[in-house]
Amino acid sequence: MSIQAVVFDAYGTLFDVYSIGALAEQLYPGQGAAISVLWRDKQIDYTRLITMSDPHRAEGSRYYQSFWNITRSALLYTLERFKLDAKPEHVDALMGQYAKLTPFAENLGVLQSLKERGITTAILSNGSPEMLSTAVSSAGMTDLIDHVISVDPIRLFKTSPEAYGLVHQTIPAEKQDILFVSSNGWDALGATWFGFTTLWVNRQQLPFEAIGPHPSYTGHDLTRVLDVFNH
Amino acid sequence: MSIQAVVFDAYGTLFDVYSIGALAEQLYPGQGAAISVLWRDKQIDYTRLITMSDPHRAEGSRYYQSFWNITRSALLYTLERFKLDAKPEHVDALMGQYAKLTPFAENLGVLQSLKERGITTAILSNGSPEMLSTAVSSAGMTDLIDHVISVDPIRLFKTSPEAYGLVHQTIPAEKQDILFVSSNGWDALGATWFGFTTLWVNRQQLPFEAIGPHPSYTGHDLTRVLDVFNH
Repeated sequence: MSIQAVVFDAYGTLFDVYSIGALAEQLYPGQGAAISVLWRDKQIDYTRLITMSDPHRAEGSRYYQSFWNITRSALLYTLERFKLDAKPEHVDALMGQYAKLTPFAENLGVLQSLKERGITTAILSNGSPEMLSTAVSSAGMTDLIDHVISVDPIRLFKTSPEAYGLVHQTIPAEKQDILFVSSNGWDALGATWFGFTTLWVNRQQLPFEAIGPHPSYTGHDLTRVLDVFNH
Repeated sequence: MSIQAVVFDAYGTLFDVYSIGALAEQLYPGQGAAISVLWRDKQIDYTRLITMSDPHRAEGSRYYQSFWNITRSALLYTLERFKLDAKPEHVDALMGQYAKLTPFAENLGVLQSLKERGITTAILSNGSPEMLSTAVSSAGMTDLIDHVISVDPIRLFKTSPEAYGLVHQTIPAEKQDILFVSSNGWDALGATWFGFTTLWVNRQQLPFEAIGPHPSYTGHDLTRVLDVFNH
Protein backbone atom coordinates (compact mmCIF):
# COMPACT_ATOMS: atom_id res chain seq x y z
CA MET A 1 0.00 0.00 0.00
CA SER A 2 1.65 3.21 -1.17
CA ILE A 3 -1.27 5.59 -0.55
CA GLN A 4 0.18 8.78 0.92
CA ALA A 5 -2.89 10.97 1.12
CA VAL A 6 -6.66 10.64 1.14
CA VAL A 7 -8.56 13.37 -0.70
CA PHE A 8 -12.29 13.60 -0.07
CA ASP A 9 -15.06 15.12 -2.09
CA ALA A 10 -17.16 17.32 0.21
CA TYR A 11 -20.83 17.50 -0.84
CA GLY A 12 -22.50 14.12 -0.74
CA THR A 13 -19.35 12.45 0.59
CA LEU A 14 -18.47 14.18 3.86
CA PHE A 15 -21.61 16.31 4.09
CA ASP A 16 -25.12 14.98 3.52
CA VAL A 17 -26.67 17.18 0.81
CA TYR A 18 -30.04 15.48 1.23
CA SER A 19 -30.17 16.27 4.96
CA ILE A 20 -31.62 19.59 3.84
CA GLY A 21 -34.83 17.72 3.00
CA ALA A 22 -36.18 18.00 6.56
CA LEU A 23 -36.07 21.79 6.56
CA ALA A 24 -37.43 21.90 3.01
CA GLU A 25 -40.30 19.65 4.13
CA GLN A 26 -41.05 21.97 7.04
CA LEU A 27 -41.10 25.05 4.77
CA TYR A 28 -42.89 23.35 1.86
CA PRO A 29 -44.93 20.45 3.28
CA GLY A 30 -45.08 17.40 1.04
CA GLN A 31 -42.25 18.67 -1.22
CA GLY A 32 -39.12 18.33 0.91
CA ALA A 33 -37.64 15.23 -0.70
CA ALA A 34 -38.43 16.39 -4.25
CA ILE A 35 -36.88 19.80 -3.54
CA SER A 36 -33.65 18.34 -2.19
CA VAL A 37 -33.26 15.98 -5.17
CA LEU A 38 -33.94 18.56 -7.91
CA TRP A 39 -31.89 21.21 -6.09
CA ARG A 40 -28.89 18.88 -6.07
CA ASP A 41 -29.41 17.84 -9.71
CA LYS A 42 -29.60 21.42 -10.96
CA GLN A 43 -26.59 22.45 -8.88
CA ILE A 44 -24.50 19.74 -10.56
CA ASP A 45 -26.03 20.58 -13.96
CA TYR A 46 -24.96 24.19 -13.68
CA THR A 47 -21.35 23.39 -12.77
CA ARG A 48 -21.15 21.28 -15.91
CA LEU A 49 -22.81 23.75 -18.25
CA ILE A 50 -20.55 26.55 -17.10
CA THR A 51 -17.30 24.61 -17.38
CA MET A 52 -18.21 22.74 -20.54
CA SER A 53 -19.35 25.81 -22.44
CA ASP A 54 -15.97 27.52 -22.07
CA PRO A 55 -13.27 25.15 -20.87
CA HIS A 56 -10.21 26.42 -22.70
CA ARG A 57 -9.19 29.73 -21.25
CA ALA A 58 -6.09 29.90 -19.12
CA GLU A 59 -7.99 32.04 -16.64
CA GLY A 60 -10.93 29.58 -16.47
CA SER A 61 -14.45 29.86 -17.82
CA ARG A 62 -15.70 33.38 -18.40
CA TYR A 63 -19.15 32.08 -17.37
CA TYR A 64 -17.88 31.00 -13.98
CA GLN A 65 -19.95 31.67 -10.87
CA SER A 66 -19.09 30.56 -7.38
CA PHE A 67 -20.63 27.30 -6.19
CA TRP A 68 -22.47 29.30 -3.56
CA ASN A 69 -24.18 31.40 -6.21
CA ILE A 70 -24.87 28.33 -8.32
CA THR A 71 -26.42 26.62 -5.30
CA ARG A 72 -28.70 29.59 -4.77
CA SER A 73 -29.66 29.71 -8.47
CA ALA A 74 -30.37 25.98 -8.44
CA LEU A 75 -32.67 26.46 -5.43
CA LEU A 76 -34.55 29.29 -7.14
CA TYR A 77 -34.98 27.14 -10.26
CA THR A 78 -36.26 24.26 -8.14
CA LEU A 79 -38.86 26.35 -6.34
CA GLU A 80 -40.05 27.86 -9.62
CA ARG A 81 -40.23 24.45 -11.26
CA PHE A 82 -42.47 23.19 -8.47
CA LYS A 83 -44.45 26.46 -8.56
CA LEU A 84 -43.55 27.19 -4.94
CA ASP A 85 -43.26 30.66 -3.45
CA ALA A 86 -39.56 31.54 -3.15
CA LYS A 87 -40.05 33.70 -0.05
CA PRO A 88 -36.75 35.44 0.75
CA GLU A 89 -36.84 34.13 4.34
CA HIS A 90 -37.33 30.54 3.07
CA VAL A 91 -34.47 30.88 0.59
CA ASP A 92 -32.22 32.34 3.26
CA ALA A 93 -33.13 29.58 5.69
CA LEU A 94 -32.40 26.83 3.16
CA MET A 95 -29.12 28.43 2.09
CA GLY A 96 -28.13 28.87 5.73
CA GLN A 97 -28.80 25.19 6.32
CA TYR A 98 -26.81 24.31 3.19
CA ALA A 99 -23.82 26.12 4.67
CA LYS A 100 -23.94 23.78 7.67
CA LEU A 101 -24.91 20.42 6.24
CA THR A 102 -25.02 17.40 8.52
CA PRO A 103 -21.92 15.21 8.16
CA PHE A 104 -22.50 11.46 7.79
CA ALA A 105 -22.34 9.68 11.14
CA GLU A 106 -19.18 7.62 10.60
CA ASN A 107 -17.05 10.39 9.10
CA LEU A 108 -15.37 11.88 12.16
CA GLY A 109 -14.20 8.48 13.34
CA VAL A 110 -12.70 7.66 9.96
CA LEU A 111 -10.88 10.99 9.79
CA GLN A 112 -9.56 10.48 13.32
CA SER A 113 -8.21 7.03 12.41
CA LEU A 114 -6.44 8.43 9.36
CA LYS A 115 -4.83 11.16 11.44
CA GLU A 116 -3.67 8.57 13.98
CA ARG A 117 -1.97 6.72 11.15
CA GLY A 118 -0.22 9.90 10.00
CA ILE A 119 -2.03 9.97 6.65
CA THR A 120 -2.42 13.36 4.96
CA THR A 121 -6.10 14.28 4.55
CA ALA A 122 -7.64 16.84 2.22
CA ILE A 123 -10.88 17.98 0.63
CA LEU A 124 -11.12 18.74 -3.10
CA SER A 125 -14.47 20.35 -3.80
CA ASN A 126 -16.43 22.43 -6.28
CA GLY A 127 -17.54 24.44 -3.22
CA SER A 128 -16.51 28.03 -2.67
CA PRO A 129 -13.76 28.53 -0.05
CA GLU A 130 -16.11 30.22 2.44
CA MET A 131 -18.73 27.45 2.12
CA LEU A 132 -16.10 24.79 2.70
CA SER A 133 -14.59 26.59 5.63
CA THR A 134 -17.98 26.97 7.34
CA ALA A 135 -18.95 23.36 6.59
CA VAL A 136 -15.67 21.95 7.91
CA SER A 137 -15.72 23.93 11.12
CA SER A 138 -19.41 23.38 11.87
CA ALA A 139 -18.86 19.63 11.38
CA GLY A 140 -15.96 19.67 13.87
CA MET A 141 -13.45 18.59 11.20
CA THR A 142 -11.05 21.51 11.38
CA ASP A 143 -8.25 19.55 13.06
CA LEU A 144 -8.87 16.44 11.00
CA ILE A 145 -8.49 17.85 7.47
CA ASP A 146 -5.00 19.05 6.53
CA HIS A 147 -5.89 20.86 3.30
CA VAL A 148 -9.15 22.27 2.01
CA ILE A 149 -8.82 22.73 -1.75
CA SER A 150 -11.51 24.57 -3.72
CA VAL A 151 -11.68 24.72 -7.52
CA ASP A 152 -12.69 28.36 -7.17
CA PRO A 153 -9.28 29.92 -8.00
CA ILE A 154 -9.14 28.18 -11.41
CA ARG A 155 -12.82 28.78 -12.27
CA LEU A 156 -13.29 25.24 -13.63
CA PHE A 157 -15.43 22.62 -11.90
CA LYS A 158 -14.89 18.90 -11.54
CA THR A 159 -14.70 16.70 -13.60
CA SER A 160 -12.31 18.87 -15.60
CA PRO A 161 -8.75 17.55 -15.33
CA GLU A 162 -7.50 20.94 -14.15
CA ALA A 163 -9.76 20.63 -11.10
CA TYR A 164 -8.34 17.25 -10.07
CA GLY A 165 -4.86 18.54 -10.90
CA LEU A 166 -5.15 21.12 -8.11
CA VAL A 167 -4.36 18.35 -5.64
CA HIS A 168 -0.78 18.20 -6.94
CA GLN A 169 -0.18 21.85 -6.13
CA THR A 170 -0.75 21.03 -2.47
CA ILE A 171 0.20 17.38 -2.05
CA PRO A 172 3.45 16.24 -3.70
CA ALA A 173 2.54 12.62 -4.49
CA GLU A 174 2.02 10.59 -7.64
CA LYS A 175 -1.56 10.29 -8.87
CA GLN A 176 -1.82 6.61 -8.03
CA ASP A 177 -0.55 7.27 -4.48
CA ILE A 178 -3.51 9.51 -3.78
CA LEU A 179 -6.78 7.88 -2.73
CA PHE A 180 -9.65 10.03 -3.96
CA VAL A 181 -12.93 9.32 -2.20
CA SER A 182 -16.35 10.36 -3.48
CA SER A 183 -19.95 9.29 -3.01
CA ASN A 184 -20.80 10.78 -6.39
CA GLY A 185 -20.41 8.17 -9.13
CA TRP A 186 -19.58 10.83 -11.73
CA ASP A 187 -16.85 12.24 -9.48
CA ALA A 188 -15.37 8.81 -8.80
CA LEU A 189 -15.37 8.24 -12.57
CA GLY A 190 -13.75 11.59 -13.36
CA ALA A 191 -11.06 10.99 -10.73
CA THR A 192 -10.42 7.48 -12.06
CA TRP A 193 -10.04 8.85 -15.58
CA PHE A 194 -7.65 11.46 -14.17
CA GLY A 195 -5.46 8.71 -12.73
CA PHE A 196 -6.07 8.76 -8.97
CA THR A 197 -6.63 5.59 -7.01
CA THR A 198 -10.33 5.90 -6.23
CA LEU A 199 -12.97 4.78 -3.77
CA TRP A 200 -16.63 5.18 -4.60
CA VAL A 201 -18.72 5.34 -1.43
CA ASN A 202 -22.01 4.02 -2.75
CA ARG A 203 -24.28 5.16 0.06
CA GLN A 204 -27.48 4.81 -1.94
CA GLN A 205 -26.76 1.34 -3.38
CA LEU A 206 -26.83 2.64 -6.94
CA PRO A 207 -25.40 0.93 -10.00
CA PHE A 208 -22.06 2.42 -11.07
CA GLU A 209 -22.02 4.56 -14.19
CA ALA A 210 -22.38 2.44 -17.32
CA ILE A 211 -19.47 4.18 -19.07
CA GLY A 212 -15.77 4.37 -18.29
CA PRO A 213 -13.57 2.40 -15.88
CA HIS A 214 -14.81 1.30 -12.47
CA PRO A 215 -13.20 2.95 -9.45
CA SER A 216 -10.38 1.08 -7.73
CA TYR A 217 -12.57 0.39 -4.67
CA THR A 218 -16.24 0.53 -3.76
CA GLY A 219 -17.91 0.54 -0.35
CA HIS A 220 -21.15 1.40 1.40
CA ASP A 221 -19.91 4.08 3.76
CA LEU A 222 -16.74 5.99 4.61
CA THR A 223 -15.32 3.24 6.85
CA ARG A 224 -14.30 1.49 3.60
CA VAL A 225 -11.41 3.98 3.48
CA LEU A 226 -9.84 2.22 6.46
CA ASP A 227 -10.26 -1.20 4.83
CA VAL A 228 -8.19 0.05 1.90
CA PHE A 229 -5.29 0.62 4.30
CA ASN A 230 -5.83 -2.67 6.11
CA HIS A 231 -5.62 -5.05 3.21
CA MET B 1 -34.46 40.22 -39.92
CA SER B 2 -31.08 39.00 -41.09
CA ILE B 3 -31.46 35.33 -40.16
CA GLN B 4 -29.99 33.28 -43.00
CA ALA B 5 -30.27 29.78 -41.63
CA VAL B 6 -32.19 27.87 -38.98
CA VAL B 7 -30.25 25.17 -37.15
CA PHE B 8 -32.25 22.67 -35.11
CA ASP B 9 -31.27 20.47 -32.25
CA ALA B 10 -32.54 16.94 -32.98
CA TYR B 11 -33.39 14.98 -29.81
CA GLY B 12 -36.15 16.62 -27.83
CA THR B 13 -36.58 19.36 -30.44
CA LEU B 14 -37.42 17.65 -33.73
CA PHE B 15 -37.79 14.14 -32.31
CA ASP B 16 -39.75 13.31 -29.17
CA VAL B 17 -37.37 11.44 -26.86
CA TYR B 18 -40.17 10.71 -24.40
CA SER B 19 -42.31 9.03 -27.06
CA ILE B 20 -40.30 5.93 -26.20
CA GLY B 21 -42.27 5.76 -22.94
CA ALA B 22 -45.15 3.83 -24.52
CA LEU B 23 -42.94 0.94 -25.62
CA ALA B 24 -41.08 1.04 -22.29
CA GLU B 25 -44.43 0.83 -20.50
CA GLN B 26 -45.43 -2.17 -22.60
CA LEU B 27 -42.14 -3.98 -21.85
CA TYR B 28 -41.95 -2.90 -18.20
CA PRO B 29 -45.51 -2.22 -16.99
CA GLY B 30 -45.79 0.68 -14.55
CA GLN B 31 -42.25 1.91 -15.27
CA GLY B 32 -42.49 3.40 -18.77
CA ALA B 33 -42.45 7.08 -17.85
CA ALA B 34 -39.74 6.67 -15.21
CA ILE B 35 -37.56 4.73 -17.65
CA SER B 36 -37.85 7.35 -20.39
CA VAL B 37 -36.98 10.20 -17.99
CA LEU B 38 -33.95 8.56 -16.36
CA TRP B 39 -32.73 7.18 -19.70
CA ARG B 40 -32.71 10.69 -21.13
CA ASP B 41 -31.07 12.18 -18.02
CA LYS B 42 -28.27 9.63 -17.99
CA GLN B 43 -27.71 10.00 -21.73
CA ILE B 44 -27.16 13.75 -21.29
CA ASP B 45 -25.07 13.14 -18.15
CA TYR B 46 -22.71 10.86 -20.04
CA THR B 47 -22.13 13.29 -22.91
CA ARG B 48 -21.10 15.90 -20.35
CA LEU B 49 -18.87 13.66 -18.28
CA ILE B 50 -17.01 12.47 -21.36
CA THR B 51 -16.44 15.91 -22.86
CA MET B 52 -15.78 17.68 -19.57
CA SER B 53 -13.25 15.16 -18.33
CA ASP B 54 -10.99 15.67 -21.34
CA PRO B 55 -11.91 18.72 -23.37
CA HIS B 56 -8.54 19.98 -24.55
CA ARG B 57 -7.16 17.59 -27.12
CA ALA B 58 -7.09 18.67 -30.72
CA GLU B 59 -8.46 15.27 -31.67
CA GLY B 60 -11.32 15.45 -29.15
CA SER B 61 -11.85 13.58 -25.90
CA ARG B 62 -9.99 10.30 -25.60
CA TYR B 63 -13.02 9.06 -23.61
CA TYR B 64 -15.38 9.72 -26.49
CA GLN B 65 -18.04 7.19 -27.37
CA SER B 66 -20.67 7.60 -30.05
CA PHE B 67 -24.04 8.93 -28.94
CA TRP B 68 -25.54 5.62 -30.01
CA ASN B 69 -23.30 3.72 -27.59
CA ILE B 70 -23.95 6.27 -24.87
CA THR B 71 -27.68 5.92 -25.42
CA ARG B 72 -27.38 2.16 -25.01
CA SER B 73 -25.23 2.50 -21.87
CA ALA B 74 -27.72 4.98 -20.40
CA LEU B 75 -30.54 2.49 -21.02
CA LEU B 76 -28.60 -0.32 -19.32
CA TYR B 77 -27.92 1.93 -16.33
CA THR B 78 -31.59 2.86 -16.13
CA LEU B 79 -32.81 -0.74 -16.16
CA GLU B 80 -30.24 -1.71 -13.51
CA ARG B 81 -31.17 1.26 -11.35
CA PHE B 82 -34.82 0.22 -11.39
CA LYS B 83 -33.80 -3.42 -10.85
CA LEU B 84 -35.43 -4.44 -14.12
CA ASP B 85 -34.33 -7.35 -16.28
CA ALA B 86 -32.33 -6.01 -19.24
CA LYS B 87 -33.42 -8.79 -21.59
CA PRO B 88 -31.48 -8.46 -24.85
CA GLU B 89 -34.71 -8.47 -26.88
CA HIS B 90 -36.12 -5.63 -24.74
CA VAL B 91 -32.94 -3.58 -25.07
CA ASP B 92 -32.89 -4.14 -28.82
CA ALA B 93 -36.55 -3.18 -29.13
CA LEU B 94 -36.06 0.06 -27.16
CA MET B 95 -32.92 0.99 -29.08
CA GLY B 96 -34.70 0.22 -32.37
CA GLN B 97 -37.51 2.54 -31.34
CA TYR B 98 -34.97 5.20 -30.33
CA ALA B 99 -33.58 5.12 -33.85
CA LYS B 100 -37.02 6.05 -35.19
CA LEU B 101 -38.42 8.48 -32.64
CA THR B 102 -41.74 10.16 -33.32
CA PRO B 103 -41.36 13.73 -34.59
CA PHE B 104 -43.50 16.39 -32.93
CA ALA B 105 -46.73 16.99 -34.84
CA GLU B 106 -46.08 20.52 -36.09
CA ASN B 107 -42.51 20.00 -37.25
CA LEU B 108 -42.97 18.97 -40.88
CA GLY B 109 -45.20 21.98 -41.57
CA VAL B 110 -42.66 24.37 -40.07
CA LEU B 111 -39.81 22.88 -42.09
CA GLN B 112 -41.90 23.08 -45.27
CA SER B 113 -42.64 26.77 -44.64
CA LEU B 114 -38.95 27.50 -44.13
CA LYS B 115 -38.08 25.75 -47.38
CA GLU B 116 -40.76 27.74 -49.23
CA ARG B 117 -39.11 30.90 -47.97
CA GLY B 118 -35.70 29.75 -49.19
CA ILE B 119 -34.22 29.56 -45.70
CA THR B 120 -31.31 27.16 -45.19
CA THR B 121 -32.19 24.45 -42.65
CA ALA B 122 -29.83 22.22 -40.69
CA ILE B 123 -29.57 19.91 -37.71
CA LEU B 124 -26.71 20.18 -35.22
CA SER B 125 -26.84 17.21 -32.89
CA ASN B 126 -24.86 15.13 -30.43
CA GLY B 127 -26.29 12.14 -32.29
CA SER B 128 -24.14 9.78 -34.33
CA PRO B 129 -24.38 10.26 -38.11
CA GLU B 130 -26.19 6.94 -38.67
CA MET B 131 -28.75 7.67 -35.93
CA LEU B 132 -29.47 11.07 -37.39
CA SER B 133 -29.74 9.77 -40.91
CA THR B 134 -32.24 7.09 -39.86
CA ALA B 135 -34.24 9.53 -37.73
CA VAL B 136 -34.45 12.15 -40.48
CA SER B 137 -35.52 9.71 -43.16
CA SER B 138 -38.03 7.83 -41.02
CA ALA B 139 -39.60 11.18 -40.06
CA GLY B 140 -39.94 12.15 -43.73
CA MET B 141 -37.60 15.13 -43.34
CA THR B 142 -34.95 14.18 -45.88
CA ASP B 143 -35.94 16.86 -48.41
CA LEU B 144 -36.60 19.49 -45.74
CA ILE B 145 -33.21 19.54 -43.98
CA ASP B 146 -30.30 20.85 -46.04
CA HIS B 147 -27.47 19.82 -43.72
CA VAL B 148 -27.26 17.19 -40.98
CA ILE B 149 -24.29 18.04 -38.77
CA SER B 150 -23.12 15.61 -36.09
CA VAL B 151 -20.53 16.40 -33.43
CA ASP B 152 -19.14 12.91 -33.97
CA PRO B 153 -16.12 13.89 -36.14
CA ILE B 154 -14.74 16.23 -33.44
CA ARG B 155 -15.49 13.88 -30.51
CA LEU B 156 -16.80 16.72 -28.30
CA PHE B 157 -20.45 17.05 -27.32
CA LYS B 158 -22.58 20.16 -26.94
CA THR B 159 -22.35 22.53 -25.07
CA SER B 160 -18.65 22.73 -25.93
CA PRO B 161 -17.97 25.73 -28.17
CA GLU B 162 -16.27 23.50 -30.74
CA ALA B 163 -19.55 21.63 -31.20
CA TYR B 164 -21.55 24.79 -31.97
CA GLY B 165 -18.65 26.01 -34.12
CA LEU B 166 -19.21 23.09 -36.51
CA VAL B 167 -22.11 25.02 -38.00
CA HIS B 168 -19.69 27.53 -39.50
CA GLN B 169 -17.88 24.82 -41.43
CA THR B 170 -21.09 24.16 -43.34
CA ILE B 171 -23.04 27.42 -43.30
CA PRO B 172 -21.08 30.60 -44.08
CA ALA B 173 -23.02 33.09 -41.95
CA GLU B 174 -22.26 35.23 -38.91
CA LYS B 175 -23.25 33.74 -35.55
CA GLN B 176 -26.05 36.22 -34.96
CA ASP B 177 -27.50 35.49 -38.41
CA ILE B 178 -28.05 31.86 -37.46
CA LEU B 179 -31.19 30.98 -35.51
CA PHE B 180 -30.43 28.00 -33.29
CA VAL B 181 -33.53 26.20 -32.08
CA SER B 182 -33.63 23.79 -29.16
CA SER B 183 -36.20 22.43 -26.72
CA ASN B 184 -33.43 21.70 -24.25
CA GLY B 185 -32.89 24.68 -21.96
CA TRP B 186 -29.22 23.78 -21.47
CA ASP B 187 -28.70 23.64 -25.23
CA ALA B 188 -30.44 26.97 -25.78
CA LEU B 189 -28.20 28.42 -23.06
CA GLY B 190 -25.00 26.96 -24.53
CA ALA B 191 -25.91 28.26 -27.99
CA THR B 192 -26.72 31.71 -26.58
CA TRP B 193 -23.37 31.80 -24.81
CA PHE B 194 -21.75 30.76 -28.11
CA GLY B 195 -23.30 33.76 -29.84
CA PHE B 196 -26.10 32.37 -31.99
CA THR B 197 -29.51 33.99 -32.09
CA THR B 198 -31.55 31.42 -30.19
CA LEU B 199 -35.07 30.11 -29.76
CA TRP B 200 -35.96 27.93 -26.81
CA VAL B 201 -38.99 25.77 -27.59
CA ASN B 202 -40.33 25.27 -24.11
CA ARG B 203 -42.63 22.34 -24.78
CA GLN B 204 -42.91 21.31 -21.15
CA GLN B 205 -43.60 24.79 -19.72
CA LEU B 206 -40.47 24.69 -17.60
CA PRO B 207 -38.70 27.66 -16.03
CA PHE B 208 -35.61 28.71 -17.96
CA GLU B 209 -32.25 27.90 -16.45
CA ALA B 210 -31.49 30.18 -13.49
CA ILE B 211 -27.97 30.96 -14.74
CA GLY B 212 -26.71 32.73 -17.86
CA PRO B 213 -28.46 34.85 -20.46
CA HIS B 214 -31.98 34.09 -21.65
CA PRO B 215 -32.36 32.91 -25.24
CA SER B 216 -33.32 35.52 -27.84
CA TYR B 217 -36.79 34.00 -28.25
CA THR B 218 -39.00 31.53 -26.41
CA GLY B 219 -42.09 29.66 -27.59
CA HIS B 220 -44.26 26.68 -26.79
CA ASP B 221 -43.78 24.68 -29.98
CA LEU B 222 -41.83 24.77 -33.24
CA THR B 223 -44.27 27.12 -34.98
CA ARG B 224 -42.59 29.92 -32.99
CA VAL B 225 -39.77 29.69 -35.55
CA LEU B 226 -42.09 31.16 -38.19
CA ASP B 227 -43.13 34.01 -35.87
CA VAL B 228 -39.46 35.01 -35.62
CA PHE B 229 -39.45 35.57 -39.39
CA ASN B 230 -42.82 37.33 -39.38
CA HIS B 231 -42.13 40.07 -36.93
